[in-house]
Amino acid sequence: MPSFSRLVRFLAKDGRTYYGDAILPHGTTDIAKAKQAKIIRGEIFGKHDVTDQVADIRKLLAPLAFEDVKTVRCLGLNYEQHAKEVFPPHALLKTNSDNNIKQSNMPIPKFPILFYKPITSLSGPTDPIPIHPLAQQGTGLDYECELVAIIGRACANVPESSALDHVLGYAIGNDVSHRDWQLKHGGGQWSLGKGFDAWAPYGPGIVSTSLIPDPQSLEISTKLNGETVQRSNTRDMVFGVARTIAFLSQGTTLLPGDLIFTGTPQGVGMGRTPQLWLRDGDVVEVGLEGVGVCRNQVEFVKEGKAKL
Amino acid sequence: MPSFSRLVRFLAKDGRTYYGDAILPHGTTDIAKAKQAKIIRGEIFGKHDVTDQVADIRKLLAPLAFEDVKTVRCLGLNYEQHAKEVFPPHALLKTNSDNNIKQSNMPIPKFPILFYKPITSLSGPTDPIPIHPLAQQGTGLDYECELVAIIGRACANVPESSALDHVLGYAIGNDVSHRDWQLKHGGGQWSLGKGFDAWAPYGPGIVSTSLIPDPQSLEISTKLNGETVQRSNTRDMVFGVARTIAFLSQGTTLLPGDLIFTGTPQGVGMGRTPQLWLRDGDVVEVGLEGVGVCRNQVEFVKEGKAKL
Repeated sequence: MPSFSRLVRFLAKDGRTYYGDAILPHGTTDIAKAKQAKIIRGEIFGKHDVTDQVADIRKLLAPLAFEDVKTVRCLGLNYEQHAKEVFPPHALLKTNSDNNIKQSNMPIPKFPILFYKPITSLSGPTDPIPIHPLAQQGTGLDYECELVAIIGRACANVPESSALDHVLGYAIGNDVSHRDWQLKHGGGQWSLGKGFDAWAPYGPGIVSTSLIPDPQSLEISTKLNGETVQRSNTRDMVFGVARTIAFLSQGTTLLPGDLIFTGTPQGVGMGRTPQLWLRDGDVVEVGLEGVGVCRNQVEFVKEGKAKL
Repeated sequence: MPSFSRLVRFLAKDGRTYYGDAILPHGTTDIAKAKQAKIIRGEIFGKHDVTDQVADIRKLLAPLAFEDVKTVRCLGLNYEQHAKEVFPPHALLKTNSDNNIKQSNMPIPKFPILFYKPITSLSGPTDPIPIHPLAQQGTGLDYECELVAIIGRACANVPESSALDHVLGYAIGNDVSHRDWQLKHGGGQWSLGKGFDAWAPYGPGIVSTSLIPDPQSLEISTKLNGETVQRSNTRDMVFGVARTIAFLSQGTTLLPGDLIFTGTPQGVGMGRTPQLWLRDGDVVEVGLEGVGVCRNQVEFVKEGKAKL
């Protein structure tokens, strides 16, 4: 059990970067609104202390330092209503009847649909989403709000009943996607259209499992330029967090700092009539009940900058 | 330019683990045959020195320490003869005409087909390949010899003409795959059938680009229980290493320690008549000219062990 309630990483007004336990203003559970945090000293996945030293937050950063994240797993078609909205247009799965037909004419996956994003795709809750010229071409720039589960303790072959014991907490993330590169140009693999630098903003912090004992009853939503475009509840997930961890950990070690983006609900731009694609300057807000909101602006760039 | 010729990581006879520059016995270029190495001190991707201190090798390990690897990228269908052998049986790509039809009736990808393996899939040149009960079911356990390019310097948006300047060197790897989990149960995504712990042995060391200025003219092969089952040359690659790095680095930062498995040539078990699947106890040797051989034994296990 982590010792913090709401883990944040932030640039402080003193110019330094800290891990902290967010202090929420009265009347909100949105970590993005925190102005102060108690500084955490030590190793986030090891021995650490939440001190009584309070720092003023200038800017919230991605909740985990780059070197503290190992692997970013993502699930596809993991909300029932979303699976229905993209099927049959989602032609790639048509031939794959062994997985996608739970019952006749239903596109619900039988096993979790797994893909990865590189750690360079991670960014913070207020960072811009840079769109490289490659992804400015064609159509299909899309948003996906997702509950993100963060592994806190290594596990392999863990049963569903104890899977959540290995979770540090939860954040909200945006699995930014370009549908042409994901679905048309990638030879069937989704990675090309989802792995650009900073295409996985997440945060605004990580809420401990002590505050969210049940991750399957949380409101989740996306606003585009202030208008709600996705609204659902994590209870619509096909594979809940515990079942997902139990499944993915079979013969595969999950490490502290591994992130699992658990799929998006209905309402993505691809599934709408007419389809709705992100444009330069758009503001996307993804929110999760009890966690808060990431607010990121789409920014068409001339050339992607090296991240490190 | 790295200061070493053939980077190895090894357990020495003194019981300690070192990075080293392999000393090859006369008459071989197979790093697996090295008995000694000059110890390297410092940071592999930073300041380091090849010392004159020679250590005796007890066992070669994965060439990079776990914490020195960030991301493992892999290409699919990246040898012309391999693309032809698995097409049309490879039904998943049938609907994906925007990528896979370069000319009529040819399955050659137009863009690199990208997927990822988790860093926990990496293992050393003589380690066993553990097969979790999940992957003992059904059919389809297969080998894939692949040239592995190791990024040495961070890059993004790098042109093909200077892409190889960012490469540390080359190794040989085995992209172990379970075709049922890769192609039938994964909802179209290949990750489930390729990401198990230790399913990406590589090594036996990393040969510097100073010794291999041109990675597109190397013999590559697989032996199964002593019999050659794959034999090709890296000149059959659809996207060579430089072109692959140029393409993948568009809007995406490649980091020191990123590995790129560049696809396998024809001769995989899936493409043979009759099909040929790995069994418990089989010995797989993957080899690359000028680099050497990884020799790994298939080991059916009762339950996967946590790696860390």
